[in-house]
Amino acid sequence: MVQQLFSVERLENFIQSVLNAYAVQEDHARICAKQIMAADLRGMHGHGIFRLPGYCRRLEEGGYNLQPHIQIERETPISAIIDGDNGLGQVVVTRAVELAIRKAQESGLAWVGIRCSNHAGAGGVYAAMTLPHDMISMYMAIGNANHMPPWGGVDLLLSTNPIAFAIPTGEEPPIVLDIATTVASYGKVKVAVQKGQTLPVGWMVDRRGQPLTDPQRIKEGFLLPIGGHKGYGLNFIIGALAGVLNTAAFGSAVIDFNKDLKSPTNSGQAFFAMRPDLFRDLDEFKAEMDLRIREIRNSTPMAGAEPIRLPGEMAQRRERQMRAEGVPVAAPVLDQIRGIARKLNLEDCLEK
Amino acid sequence: MVQQLFSVERLENFIQSVLNAYAVQEDHARICAKQIMAADLRGMHGHGIFRLPGYCRRLEEGGYNLQPHIQIERETPISAIIDGDNGLGQVVVTRAVELAIRKAQESGLAWVGIRCSNHAGAGGVYAAMTLPHDMISMYMAIGNANHMPPWGGVDLLLSTNPIAFAIPTGEEPPIVLDIATTVASYGKVKVAVQKGQTLPVGWMVDRRGQPLTDPQRIKEGFLLPIGGHKGYGLNFIIGALAGVLNTAAFGSAVIDFNKDLKSPTNSGQAFFAMRPDLFRDLDEFKAEMDLRIREIRNSTPMAGAEPIRLPGEMAQRRERQMRAEGVPVAAPVLDQIRGIARKLNLEDCLEK
Repeated sequence: MVQQLFSVERLENFIQSVLNAYAVQEDHARICAKQIMAADLRGMHGHGIFRLPGYCRRLEEGGYNLQPHIQIERETPISAIIDGDNGLGQVVVTRAVELAIRKAQESGLAWVGIRCSNHAGAGGVYAAMTLPHDMISMYMAIGNANHMPPWGGVDLLLSTNPIAFAIPTGEEPPIVLDIATTVASYGKVKVAVQKGQTLPVGWMVDRRGQPLTDPQRIKEGFLLPIGGHKGYGLNFIIGALAGVLNTAAFGSAVIDFNKDLKSPTNSGQAFFAMRPDLFRDLDEFKAEMDLRIREIRNSTPMAGAEPIRLPGEMAQRRERQMRAEGVPVAAPVLDQIRGIARKLNLEDCLEK
Repeated sequence: MVQQLFSVERLENFIQSVLNAYAVQEDHARICAKQIMAADLRGMHGHGIFRLPGYCRRLEEGGYNLQPHIQIERETPISAIIDGDNGLGQVVVTRAVELAIRKAQESGLAWVGIRCSNHAGAGGVYAAMTLPHDMISMYMAIGNANHMPPWGGVDLLLSTNPIAFAIPTGEEPPIVLDIATTVASYGKVKVAVQKGQTLPVGWMVDRRGQPLTDPQRIKEGFLLPIGGHKGYGLNFIIGALAGVLNTAAFGSAVIDFNKDLKSPTNSGQAFFAMRPDLFRDLDEFKAEMDLRIREIRNSTPMAGAEPIRLPGEMAQRRERQMRAEGVPVAAPVLDQIRGIARKLNLEDCLEK
């Protein structure tokens, strides 16, 4: 597929200018642009600038609170609830992660729940925020549209509910795992549709449980959980911990953010940060992480298979490459963001 | 398959008597027998009395420390490491769970890491221990034999590394999820082999990545992670958090407890307990859990499918049934435990 390369700075500035044009407050626009670009830079393009047109539609319809009072509630030294007041998801979650890190620096660990948030993009971006602080993290989120039924059912009550982890290392690239509890995320399905690709068997089934691979038929299809009933169970647990526990939307309360552009989504996320030195000297921990990573990387691949990789291993390399060569924007995404640029008189921002 | 029913009390007393006969100290034998039986009572027979012959072989070979000094190290109000001193896994993990619960009662939440432990059986049993205290829990463990290669590889560096969660509810059965991060646990594979069943496609592959279904060939096979690279990633995260973080065995350091009956396994587990009222009034939380559970249970099943279930839903019903009618012991297991009874002169304990 045709794509065009842009410098990180250009895209980040463009996103920020677009958000400013929609009257998002300055610091929120900056944080949001940075986190959207961070997703692209990790190679998670399904949560990068690809999402901007969707956010813009929501901004146009008044679906966000542009002057949110993001508030901390029920605070203890090791926990808090953040009420995002329907602000941009990237901003609310970033605030929560920063709070969790501060608390974990003081107390060793912390769990911060989030409600009244919005779609916040790639979990790996938030999980990775603890790494410069040498902390372990776990992030859970409720997806913003229900595309999955309970295991064995047909009613759409569950979303892709992702979970992400970050674990510091020594010399090796840090471990960052970011997985939807569905075989494919809906974002990934959409990227495939945009590229006109047939979906792999196992991504979606139809109402009779038959594989659905035609990208034109995705509206009839259901996402499938990883490991069948196991992924369904994990998906439900994430729903309880990122949703119900925070008085955020889960199950039938989830607003489909693609169909309803006005109602507050009351999105829920949860973030946990923990210092390894609660359990073991940090340097020892990092050195053994390196050892375990290396023994896996150097182990024997299956005949004909690619070299063995660790979760998040490619992120640093991808970022380095994109910072040097530019961030690829696929042609259909570029059409959309050019449209936004024209509409907002920001065409200069995109010129190379 | 032929099976025989025994009362819970008879089996629990039998296990305790067997452990006593192997010079396990009285209170440890009691805890271990209770937790083994708790697995059977949840319907997790692969971690119930089915495991006793394996534990006995290890006891015979001197693989356990019968007088362990189980010690708490690096303690803070919200964390601790437990060194199990090579005691019985059930005893060490039970001690850790009790400590996590005490700390979470005081501080709101707690993470307890475990090292120098042993195979401890069903994660769901430990996760469920927080429920009478109205707490959420998460349990992670490193399996005691590596039956899985890294994704795309053939070297056995990973185990089934399970994760379990428990979430309190109001009137509905509590949520308890207990999943191996492999499609099938090795315990489940063994039960299938014992029953002479063909393995379902997807449980194991051979060195060339081809499905392996012949129960006679399991020694040539690899377990598969749930969701391919996703389950591999989650498995590795559990390895880091239950193993490396606790200075417990992970990767090539894992002792195959079926082959090596003498060396301390240095098994690692991790347990996290958290009070929901850090984030929301407990009664409100439980009431909404009930609501979300009910909307899933009452949702439409696929044509011809079973009624929709929630994680752990059957456990209470199973326990009630087994307490009334007896615990089923499959014929091959019964043969083995009768052998143990004869050897230890405990045949009377098994008579009905």
